[in-house]
Amino acid sequence: MAVLLKAKPLADETSARIAAKVKRWHAQGVEPAIAAILVEGDPASLYYAQAKRRLAEKLNVKFELLTFPPDVQEEPLIQTIASLNKKADVHGIMLELPLPGGIRLGRLADAIDPLKDVDGIASANKLACMIGSPGIYPATPQSCIRLLHYYQYPLRGKHVVVIGRGETVGRPLVQLLLRENATVTVCHSHTPDLSVHIRQADIIIAAAGHAGLIKKAMVHPELVVIDAGINAKIDGNGITGDVDPETANAVRAISPVPGGVGTLTTVLLFENVMRAMDLQEAEGRFSR
Amino acid sequence: MAVLLKAKPLADETSARIAAKVKRWHAQGVEPAIAAILVEGDPASLYYAQAKRRLAEKLNVKFELLTFPPDVQEEPLIQTIASLNKKADVHGIMLELPLPGGIRLGRLADAIDPLKDVDGIASANKLACMIGSPGIYPATPQSCIRLLHYYQYPLRGKHVVVIGRGETVGRPLVQLLLRENATVTVCHSHTPDLSVHIRQADIIIAAAGHAGLIKKAMVHPELVVIDAGINAKIDGNGITGDVDPETANAVRAISPVPGGVGTLTTVLLFENVMRAMDLQEAEGRFSR
Repeated sequence: MAVLLKAKPLADETSARIAAKVKRWHAQGVEPAIAAILVEGDPASLYYAQAKRRLAEKLNVKFELLTFPPDVQEEPLIQTIASLNKKADVHGIMLELPLPGGIRLGRLADAIDPLKDVDGIASANKLACMIGSPGIYPATPQSCIRLLHYYQYPLRGKHVVVIGRGETVGRPLVQLLLRENATVTVCHSHTPDLSVHIRQADIIIAAAGHAGLIKKAMVHPELVVIDAGINAKIDGNGITGDVDPETANAVRAISPVPGGVGTLTTVLLFENVMRAMDLQEAEGRFSR
Repeated sequence: MAVLLKAKPLADETSARIAAKVKRWHAQGVEPAIAAILVEGDPASLYYAQAKRRLAEKLNVKFELLTFPPDVQEEPLIQTIASLNKKADVHGIMLELPLPGGIRLGRLADAIDPLKDVDGIASANKLACMIGSPGIYPATPQSCIRLLHYYQYPLRGKHVVVIGRGETVGRPLVQLLLRENATVTVCHSHTPDLSVHIRQADIIIAAAGHAGLIKKAMVHPELVVIDAGINAKIDGNGITGDVDPETANAVRAISPVPGGVGTLTTVLLFENVMRAMDLQEAEGRFSR
């Protein structure tokens, strides 16, 4: 049976550190606060928003959920972001995904003040992540790498196969992994045979958004598997990863879903809020 | 003996198309013009500048070389860039590399108006290249991909191994190759054994800047090799690639150095000038 790379111990440790930092902000008279923008209509976006609200309460971070009807246009959303940008007492702005089809995520993302962009989706932060300059990096790719660090699987010189080339996980992951000095292969829907690449890998990170894509027959006993997939179960009860659960007894280590990458990601989002506040302070925004 | 992927036919074809476009600009009363900034002291930077001057003359593009002494500080360079940004009759600004140690390339690059940044090194263009939005992309990675297209080696579903993760070639290449639907592996100085990865590859692109790094023993007879290395020969006479010349008779196809990627890159730099002028026109800069 594989080692289960559960996120809880690291998530708890990180939460405790964030809570202590929140306390220090309060002591300085600053109440950390974030706002999430939710367009109603998709149960997944509501699910994520509620998970964030629960953690915000636990960490003593003020959380405001701004909801819009499913047929909302871009303009009111842009205006809401613009007004949140101006509020000195809001330190982080999040967009709950997915957004309805007609809304351009890129346009909304770039409307967010990069120093409040705790999802790391504004162009300035994407670029920072790519070239390694200071900024706010997306939480999910960070979560994958932190889990590996925590369980002491080194990355330097290792061959990591990333499955998925999406803008929020796969692509930023490549940049972060290269900075860890890993050799990186990116596979995706046009890769003719995933198993050829997985066979060569020391570590795989699945971020394809395709339930059960990685099967037991593709893996090997020395493989370390990070499952960054979050897919709704067919029966509507809970979530499942990109890795077929049967794979667990055929590899060296695997991160569970739920209880793995996603669990840590939510916490790292609040770490990003703390980072955002540090960057805002460095800009002199809290000078009184 | 391998097929030699010589750049000349494609470079000639592309040059002819650029020359025709330059003619059209002249007919509209606009004289395409570029400026190159050269800090004296490195023979390589002078060599590149002269190659650009020759091609500029051939294409009827006005070329201005601005030279600075080896001990120049950043400020005069930034001021020069700022004044070139303002000149409506200068359409492209290039920095000859390498720059002396004390000069921060990133700072200079971001001082260039992104619409005149024909090297594609300003943050806005790096980001555009990463996310696939309109912009000016660096010429060398484009050159590698164009050579493969020209010689009809498809990329979709192929496994391409990129050797080198530099900011000017390796990293942008990964993005461009993913958009071609290739499976991409990035190797670098921390990869324990390059030959393991090259053995799996359909195509390799060498961009490590390390003369003769790829040896005959590492390759296989079905391999297509693009050599993007430009290294000064030890005897000071001419340039050599990242691939050992003996490799040529052990692979399916290989791009020569000189006469391959570099030859096409210089031409694509002028294609970037044409692209820059189109973007400037779209912004209404040539309205009379």
